[in-house]
Amino acid sequence: MGRGLRKVGHVQASKGMSVNQLVLQMGAAGVMGGGNLARSVDIIESMVNDKDCTVFLGQAGAMVPGGMRDILIEMLEAGWVDVFVTTGATLTHDLAEALGFAHYQGSAHADDAELNRQGWDRMHDSYMPNEVYPKLEDFLKPILAGMVGRELAIREFLWEIGRNVKARSLLKVCAEKKIPIFCPAISDSGLGLMVWGFIQKNKLSVSAFDDLKEILDIAWTAKKSGVVYIGGGVPKNYIQQAMQFSRQAAYAVQITTDRPEPGGSSGAPLKEGISWGKLEPGARYADLFCDATIALPIIHAALKERIG
Amino acid sequence: MGRGLRKVGHVQASKGMSVNQLVLQMGAAGVMGGGNLARSVDIIESMVNDKDCTVFLGQAGAMVPGGMRDILIEMLEAGWVDVFVTTGATLTHDLAEALGFAHYQGSAHADDAELNRQGWDRMHDSYMPNEVYPKLEDFLKPILAGMVGRELAIREFLWEIGRNVKARSLLKVCAEKKIPIFCPAISDSGLGLMVWGFIQKNKLSVSAFDDLKEILDIAWTAKKSGVVYIGGGVPKNYIQQAMQFSRQAAYAVQITTDRPEPGGSSGAPLKEGISWGKLEPGARYADLFCDATIALPIIHAALKERIG
Amino acid sequence: MGRGLRKVGHVQASKGMSVNQLVLQMGAAGVMGGGNLARSVDIIESMVNDKDCTVFLGQAGAMVPGGMRDILIEMLEAGWVDVFVTTGATLTHDLAEALGFAHYQGSAHADDAELNRQGWDRMHDSYMPNEVYPKLEDFLKPILAGMVGRELAIREFLWEIGRNVKARSLLKVCAEKKIPIFCPAISDSGLGLMVWGFIQKNKLSVSAFDDLKEILDIAWTAKKSGVVYIGGGVPKNYIQQAMQFSRQAAYAVQITTDRPEPGGSSGAPLKEGISWGKLEPGARYADLFCDATIALPIIHAALKERIG
Amino acid sequence: MGRGLRKVGHVQASKGMSVNQLVLQMGAAGVMGGGNLARSVDIIESMVNDKDCTVFLGQAGAMVPGGMRDILIEMLEAGWVDVFVTTGATLTHDLAEALGFAHYQGSAHADDAELNRQGWDRMHDSYMPNEVYPKLEDFLKPILAGMVGRELAIREFLWEIGRNVKARSLLKVCAEKKIPIFCPAISDSGLGLMVWGFIQKNKLSVSAFDDLKEILDIAWTAKKSGVVYIGGGVPKNYIQQAMQFSRQAAYAVQITTDRPEPGGSSGAPLKEGISWGKLEPGARYADLFCDATIALPIIHAALKERIG
Repeated sequence: MGRGLRKVGHVQASKGMSVNQLVLQMGAAGVMGGGNLARSVDIIESMVNDKDCTVFLGQAGAMVPGGMRDILIEMLEAGWVDVFVTTGATLTHDLAEALGFAHYQGSAHADDAELNRQGWDRMHDSYMPNEVYPKLEDFLKPILAGMVGRELAIREFLWEIGRNVKARSLLKVCAEKKIPIFCPAISDSGLGLMVWGFIQKNKLSVSAFDDLKEILDIAWTAKKSGVVYIGGGVPKNYIQQAMQFSRQAAYAVQITTDRPEPGGSSGAPLKEGISWGKLEPGARYADLFCDATIALPIIHAALKERIG
Repeated sequence: MGRGLRKVGHVQASKGMSVNQLVLQMGAAGVMGGGNLARSVDIIESMVNDKDCTVFLGQAGAMVPGGMRDILIEMLEAGWVDVFVTTGATLTHDLAEALGFAHYQGSAHADDAELNRQGWDRMHDSYMPNEVYPKLEDFLKPILAGMVGRELAIREFLWEIGRNVKARSLLKVCAEKKIPIFCPAISDSGLGLMVWGFIQKNKLSVSAFDDLKEILDIAWTAKKSGVVYIGGGVPKNYIQQAMQFSRQAAYAVQITTDRPEPGGSSGAPLKEGISWGKLEPGARYADLFCDATIALPIIHAALKERIG
Repeated sequence: MGRGLRKVGHVQASKGMSVNQLVLQMGAAGVMGGGNLARSVDIIESMVNDKDCTVFLGQAGAMVPGGMRDILIEMLEAGWVDVFVTTGATLTHDLAEALGFAHYQGSAHADDAELNRQGWDRMHDSYMPNEVYPKLEDFLKPILAGMVGRELAIREFLWEIGRNVKARSLLKVCAEKKIPIFCPAISDSGLGLMVWGFIQKNKLSVSAFDDLKEILDIAWTAKKSGVVYIGGGVPKNYIQQAMQFSRQAAYAVQITTDRPEPGGSSGAPLKEGISWGKLEPGARYADLFCDATIALPIIHAALKERIG
Repeated sequence: MGRGLRKVGHVQASKGMSVNQLVLQMGAAGVMGGGNLARSVDIIESMVNDKDCTVFLGQAGAMVPGGMRDILIEMLEAGWVDVFVTTGATLTHDLAEALGFAHYQGSAHADDAELNRQGWDRMHDSYMPNEVYPKLEDFLKPILAGMVGRELAIREFLWEIGRNVKARSLLKVCAEKKIPIFCPAISDSGLGLMVWGFIQKNKLSVSAFDDLKEILDIAWTAKKSGVVYIGGGVPKNYIQQAMQFSRQAAYAVQITTDRPEPGGSSGAPLKEGISWGKLEPGARYADLFCDATIALPIIHAALKERIG
């Protein structure tokens, strides 16, 4: 029995082993979450190393408050990612850190009324000082003033901000390396609110639809596509629809803790995308059910060992 | 012992009892998920009956493919909801049904490559015929043509479409009853794609930011606010930030199966919002961990029995 | 398109509708969680009404502290259940209530050190007074004294206790109606601890294995089997193995919020059981992802309306 | 602001870094899942290095089919664990491998009826050949024959089997190193079934309660206790009750993907145990929400680097 099937290897850990060595062991086990983690590393490695492949990274959720900011920046700096789709919240927290603020290690069981009095905004056990907002406004005002009268797509608008950010950041690296950065729901964020404050008295036009042309052009002209989803939400769905209306993805990895049963896009298994024409029937893909603040560091460290 | 605490009642079910009678029994039990379901009904009842309260409904996820469309429409028709924030996907599926298409009962274990060949788009075990897209385009073209040259906020844009929908639908009821409908990530949807196709050759400007003024004005001028979140994503977060930058919510209910641990907005317990100033420290709120296709029918039937 | 497939109906709620009427509407929708809930009711109705079918109910988790005690008792009283497999915790909480104690509506965000000082044992937001334990001991001592010198299977042991319980309870109804009640991990409970205290000084032999013969005999001689799992754990697995080593189940329903990905029995989809020979390939089954304190009252009320 | 709070560090990954180096980076981030993973390693390290601490390991779920067998064996061999509580399923799969069988890498989307015809038992994406059962019986028969007439606690019974296992295994290492191994629900397993088959014709008495004395004695005489729960179920609860009725745990780590809302023991946060007197109010503890086939290899590799 078992012809054609590989045995489940039992993970061997050795003292001082590298992260990639451990991931290879999980790959030898090959099943359950550990197997999916190893498969995720393999697939991302393949898409990054595939010269013909355009890599789309969709990211939602509290990755910056969760300590994953430098990993995301490195993925962009390293040239692993060709298109970045994210949330306004991620960009707001990124900008807050670029302006010298930090997030703080707190408690998920805090007294929230007390935190409110002290000026802390809580995300599970990570705190952001609320004083971020006025500083954000001060920073953005002159930049926005320089855009008055223009009509911009959100991507152009974000690059413009990125060019004005001094510190290493997601926004800066995308602007510098000319990585298309999309944020369809930008108005849904602190950053968006600051813009809103400004346009109360100034003329500045940012289009809700113009970016679609760019992402679809990229997807259409790509020889192959690979997609990586950290969390679901709009970033995943926005890339998925670009796949649906162009060439389907040949590689795909998603990391989420959302459930598939309620039928929403965030928790939908990648396989479902085959019906829609978002994913090639023969694509390599992995659904990784894991908190991304656990999975991403492991994946990233393993990839650094493997690539370049 | 137990002074000041209520006993857990054990749910009594009787033959032919009404949904509300059962919910009251769950309220007498008062703990775990059943207790939260009963509390959710109580709180939504209170916010709807509170003349001073402006009710914001945020909805994400596959509610239309999941058979919840008429309940959502009824909630809007009944005047229970003052502001509706949703996703482009919901509006696309709503429009598909308004144009005469249906969703179909399928299988979560389907062969997706076969579904793709047959022209089915799968969401868990609900299928949509892919032929929806060209029909959507046919429907929208003349409407969009009528908007050429205009500058619109997304809300205005959606009302304009709603005015042209013949069949009972989410879009139509919002337009008819002048319920502000917000969809910050509208470009992230089939509907958005159709618009994109049109603006390739036509001038039509839809602003990414303009709606913020309207939702914040509503939130600022409300005497009290109540929020109901079916799913997380942008709709929840968009209302939450309106609360943060105006008056905090006095009533709040959320229905989600997302986990709180990864720290993202979708899975965040409502209590966390107190730190941000999104929720009053003394607010009445309930976090209902349940598939909304189970919870919403029960809540809705119970509310119909209780309200007017 | 769509030949052979049913349309997703959109749930219609009417004022004062009965629980079963709402469940039928969810069945007409037919997808996602609501569809599974309706299917669960249909399947349990079928197994109960099928004269040839032996119904096995496996139950784990905080159903008694969660206010589901009377529903479980009614299911046993009504003759819907032929074999009951449960946990020592359920029987301990059942006995506590039979002895006049109650559970209390508390808070999931309580100060646990303070609860400990006050003598409350917390299960999420349900509290049990810790003074239950000495009373349990007082109650059990004379019963255990009457068994000294005997060799018992756990089922016999539980019936013996049940015969001595005055108040309506799970234990009493099983003893009175001679419903085989199995609790393989009985030592893992407050009840078990009381027994342990007693046998320190007394001779009383309860076998870990003897019940297997009985449950396997029942499963072997059944013309058909139906299984209902409320939660996973030992009760589910114990029934599953009885199915594996006898006749496979023809009907199956499980209600759980556990994830399938880690591969354990509690979160395993029923379909997996087909490979093991626990479930017939042509069985009717439903995996209901829902907190049982929400699902069970609805299912029970709908069943009462349907069944004689 | 932020006095007394640590900043969230952003994880730094370097090429070829060791697993422990990465875990330390997650600890510097200090929040969300990554922070909990790092904290889990710190706490287990502390309990293992604390000479006064008795370490209880509770394990449920598909760890052997999931490729974690050698890690568990190593933890026992290394002397990190003083008491092991597990499920009958774990011991059955362990024994299957000890007898020369393997588990195989399959698919979670398999055709289960076809697997059944081919003789494969599926656990998510791991397959076990069904032919394990007769071999198990052959192996056990002579061992059981040697016990005829005896009265045994389950722990003694398992050591007896372990002494007869030739290959490196969980059962053998516990027997050799005299690590108390408890399996309260042993009848709920393939191993249990084989015993049942034997005792149909032979006299062999295994007590359901006798082990309680031993685990409580160990817990009572321990200067301090530390608990590690991989999965929930009976193993967790059995150790928890030993803590409740002796000295409370001073260190605790649990790894589970179960939800807390339904109130059951498996998904209950450790903090809840403080109310029951299972956990010291000042204990160091971490609730790690993660698939154990991901978390355990990382924790184990990091611990190997840190400990002796």
